[in-house]
Amino acid sequence: MATNDKRPLILISNDDGFQAKGINSLIDMVKDLGDVVVCAPNGPRSGNACAFSATTPLRLKLQKKCEGLEIWSCNGTPVDSVKLALSQLLQRKPDIVIGGINHGDNASVNTHYSGTMGVTLEGCMKYIPSVAFSLCDYNEDADFSPLRPYIHKYTERVLSEGLPIGVCLNINFPKLTTFQGVKVCRMAHGTWYNEVSTCHHPRGYDYYWMVGHYRNDEPEADDTDNWALQHGYIAITPTHIDVTAYEFMNQKEQWEE
Amino acid sequence: MATNDKRPLILISNDDGFQAKGINSLIDMVKDLGDVVVCAPNGPRSGNACAFSATTPLRLKLQKKCEGLEIWSCNGTPVDSVKLALSQLLQRKPDIVIGGINHGDNASVNTHYSGTMGVTLEGCMKYIPSVAFSLCDYNEDADFSPLRPYIHKYTERVLSEGLPIGVCLNINFPKLTTFQGVKVCRMAHGTWYNEVSTCHHPRGYDYYWMVGHYRNDEPEADDTDNWALQHGYIAITPTHIDVTAYEFMNQKEQWEE
Repeated sequence: MATNDKRPLILISNDDGFQAKGINSLIDMVKDLGDVVVCAPNGPRSGNACAFSATTPLRLKLQKKCEGLEIWSCNGTPVDSVKLALSQLLQRKPDIVIGGINHGDNASVNTHYSGTMGVTLEGCMKYIPSVAFSLCDYNEDADFSPLRPYIHKYTERVLSEGLPIGVCLNINFPKLTTFQGVKVCRMAHGTWYNEVSTCHHPRGYDYYWMVGHYRNDEPEADDTDNWALQHGYIAITPTHIDVTAYEFMNQKEQWEE
Repeated sequence: MATNDKRPLILISNDDGFQAKGINSLIDMVKDLGDVVVCAPNGPRSGNACAFSATTPLRLKLQKKCEGLEIWSCNGTPVDSVKLALSQLLQRKPDIVIGGINHGDNASVNTHYSGTMGVTLEGCMKYIPSVAFSLCDYNEDADFSPLRPYIHKYTERVLSEGLPIGVCLNINFPKLTTFQGVKVCRMAHGTWYNEVSTCHHPRGYDYYWMVGHYRNDEPEADDTDNWALQHGYIAITPTHIDVTAYEFMNQKEQWEE
């Protein structure tokens, strides 16, 4: 896109596909803050994490172009979409990468499975300030409007102040029309269970769907993203690229022997 | 698998597929330590990260069964393979989950893209001691034999001592026949660049392959996985599930206003 260098350049992607209500709500909420380029999967890619397409040829398709906005779709993953946008669509590094708005929460261990977080981690790995927005509502017609003032404010703040290198923000909103407030919190320890549903095919074999239930394994802790969301707060979980478990270094000698 | 409760139960998966030389070398190296169940993708899934299949029906296929060993393939991702094994194939929780041996390194930011690390993170998220092994050699006929004594020793140690909850090990081996030693290290800050190769289809459109080059952005630092591997050491990077950037908490007040 031929962009105005004086306006911020905003790159948006998601994992629900370019046609989802969440991403289109997001575009509408931030388009006054800069030029917007969207590059997003051509359909649902929930659970795609940081996956990229090592063996599939990828294509880009222009879906919409108007003043200050281009929307492209791609046949790959959320991370592919970001890589393709950075390499093929943008003449300069964007000032922010935004993933979302996801239909469904990305708190706790969902961070590891989320394609929305894939978008945001990919931006962060490219040293671009990056944010993910998710709403705790899987409905495809979810009401994103209560998020508008917050998403506008947070995007504006990240555009003006940046983020520390290697740190991105995972921001989850409870399904409410008004919020108790905002909590900067840590990722809860939680577990998915009963994740496989077995079905019987008419031709005589079993097949499986990935489903599951989530359990917060520390429901009493009041400093987690799960707690904040359950109590009506917007949960901001700062997330870093460096996943080293520094606390393990006390076992260094034993393992280096 | 009907397992002997007195022998450790070892679950193995990978992202190169059940037929890869790496996973078959691994099976051979650890099979004396317990009963082994393999559940791995039916073909290459490099770059699959922690992706799971939200919209694809999955199937399992028994490929081999003999005393103390079962090998299953699945049409999903590495993470799907682990989830299916835990849910459908194993009568009890395994004592260890092992990902690998990967053909190619999984150091630095590759951690985020790696399906081998997807296996290991998935095991860790299920509170099972989990380890990933990778060799810095993409060749499909790579020589894994120099790794044997180390992989045997590390598997034995994790089986006997376990790992801290929420921490797994990402162990990378340089492509050498003998090693300088072992370093417990942190993940290097690095970047992939030139990640997209453009091709022109005979029918007149452009398509793209994900490729790229990796750059260590802190080549002088001698405490990173990249440094260890470059200098001939086995790199053990302890990795945790909790990706919270605790160092950001000093901005808590500003963001909660």
